[in-house]
Amino acid sequence: MIVLTLPGAPGIELSVAKAFGAKLVEVEHKTFPDGETYIRIPTDVNGEVVTIVQSMFPNQDKRLVELLLTVETCKDLGASKVITIIPYIAYSRQDKRFRDGEPISIKTILKLLGSAGADTLLVVDIHKSESLQYFPGKAIEITSLVLLGKKACEKGMENPIVLAPDLGALKRAQRVAKELKTEYDYMEKFRDRVTGEITIKPKEVDVSGRDVLIIDDIISTGGTIAKASRIIKSLGARRVLVAAAHSLLINNAYERIISSGVECIYTANTIKRAKALPKLEIIDISSEIIPNLKQIL
Amino acid sequence: MIVLTLPGAPGIELSVAKAFGAKLVEVEHKTFPDGETYIRIPTDVNGEVVTIVQSMFPNQDKRLVELLLTVETCKDLGASKVITIIPYIAYSRQDKRFRDGEPISIKTILKLLGSAGADTLLVVDIHKSESLQYFPGKAIEITSLVLLGKKACEKGMENPIVLAPDLGALKRAQRVAKELKTEYDYMEKFRDRVTGEITIKPKEVDVSGRDVLIIDDIISTGGTIAKASRIIKSLGARRVLVAAAHSLLINNAYERIISSGVECIYTANTIKRAKALPKLEIIDISSEIIPNLKQIL
Repeated sequence: MIVLTLPGAPGIELSVAKAFGAKLVEVEHKTFPDGETYIRIPTDVNGEVVTIVQSMFPNQDKRLVELLLTVETCKDLGASKVITIIPYIAYSRQDKRFRDGEPISIKTILKLLGSAGADTLLVVDIHKSESLQYFPGKAIEITSLVLLGKKACEKGMENPIVLAPDLGALKRAQRVAKELKTEYDYMEKFRDRVTGEITIKPKEVDVSGRDVLIIDDIISTGGTIAKASRIIKSLGARRVLVAAAHSLLINNAYERIISSGVECIYTANTIKRAKALPKLEIIDISSEIIPNLKQIL
Repeated sequence: MIVLTLPGAPGIELSVAKAFGAKLVEVEHKTFPDGETYIRIPTDVNGEVVTIVQSMFPNQDKRLVELLLTVETCKDLGASKVITIIPYIAYSRQDKRFRDGEPISIKTILKLLGSAGADTLLVVDIHKSESLQYFPGKAIEITSLVLLGKKACEKGMENPIVLAPDLGALKRAQRVAKELKTEYDYMEKFRDRVTGEITIKPKEVDVSGRDVLIIDDIISTGGTIAKASRIIKSLGARRVLVAAAHSLLINNAYERIISSGVECIYTANTIKRAKALPKLEIIDISSEIIPNLKQIL
């Protein structure tokens, strides 16, 4: 097996290549003066099983084009199988038409990936697992959240509750809570019958005096998490921690979350990160990816 | 017919819609804070022939994603036929593997466009016409260069020669020269047998005292044109004009070309342009596109 690494690869490619004794090759890449993306595969892939590692953040569209060009070139040059590991796949939140005339962007992306020649796809915590049906080949989703939840608990949480910041994340919270053997709940919207004002609060559990682990798949601008955290704190929670698979942390998301009372954000190494942040704990998820890749091979 | 216009559409969509009495609808578009591309088609396309107009410069990859999302959404929403007019299609210069392991990028782009659901494709002066074979549907290439050449001649060229700045542009020069009933030639590389130095000059014609029209498909950084112009001037050419389909004019390309002695650049309106330039004459090529579109419908 050859492991090809593209500019968005977040580091897991090293342990993946090592685990399989595979050759790790960086795909050459540059941008032409006019903005066109260039890639080149500097190794012979003919007859080889090729695993391409690429995450699609930042610069989602450029990362996508690099990936599509690499996949098609591998197939063109005779690779016997093309496996794509996309720890963070962009466009997963546009998984339905919220308004008439919208695209189902994740469908387009996954179909194109198949058209380009990808045989198998491994992703980490995609926004909706059901979206993977759009990929024409075999698609596997790995969750990082159980691992992240365990890491948070190792640091000593007392009587913890796993909490989804909205209904969309409830399934994830349920899964993590089951593994951690804790209670779980989600933040529900309430409309005040008199004022019409919408507020959110945990649907059933009382968080007072307890440690809360907020679970989500993607932190983008951090608004959802920060809001949930502030409310939980105001309801008397002792400590608030966050476990999120993909911490994009757009603009001042990190400061926003920390200032809302979150003690630490546990996140997976699904994207490349420019700099370390004191309260962002990055957990390597290669150990989750490697056994799944073994099953495919 | 509905004409859908995307952010790269260079203006021809207006005359196209008018010529067919078609509804002209701008596709809604924005970029999410994290960088994801969003589009929405704010009209019902069910059962309709849809013509999408998009050029792929600047921001080639974003323009491509907008186009792919729009094409697939139109098909999903029941459009009876999807025609894509791409006046400037990016990646056309990567039309072969110049080195082992390179992609044939234009092949990937055209195949993906077909996979997304485009039935028919209209492009203007693609770098190599042969590349269109990669598009699975019907593909039509329109040339703007004859029109540009005629416009240049209208301004009074004396005893003109049409000149390709390199062998790659020779076919184009030949075609324009035939229409203009002029001589043509190309700039050939010569290696000095003693010094080994490579120089270029017109292969056969003597440009001394004559007006020269340099023909090319794409002006990117302007290096090729500026070099050709300087040499032709040094060989005694009276006037040097340029006809180029797509004037990307990266960095200081315009100044570079004008300072090399070029009197005027004639170019087609295949890309959106931020500002007017005194010696850049932009020619509307809707008149070339409309009859070709009529034949498809």
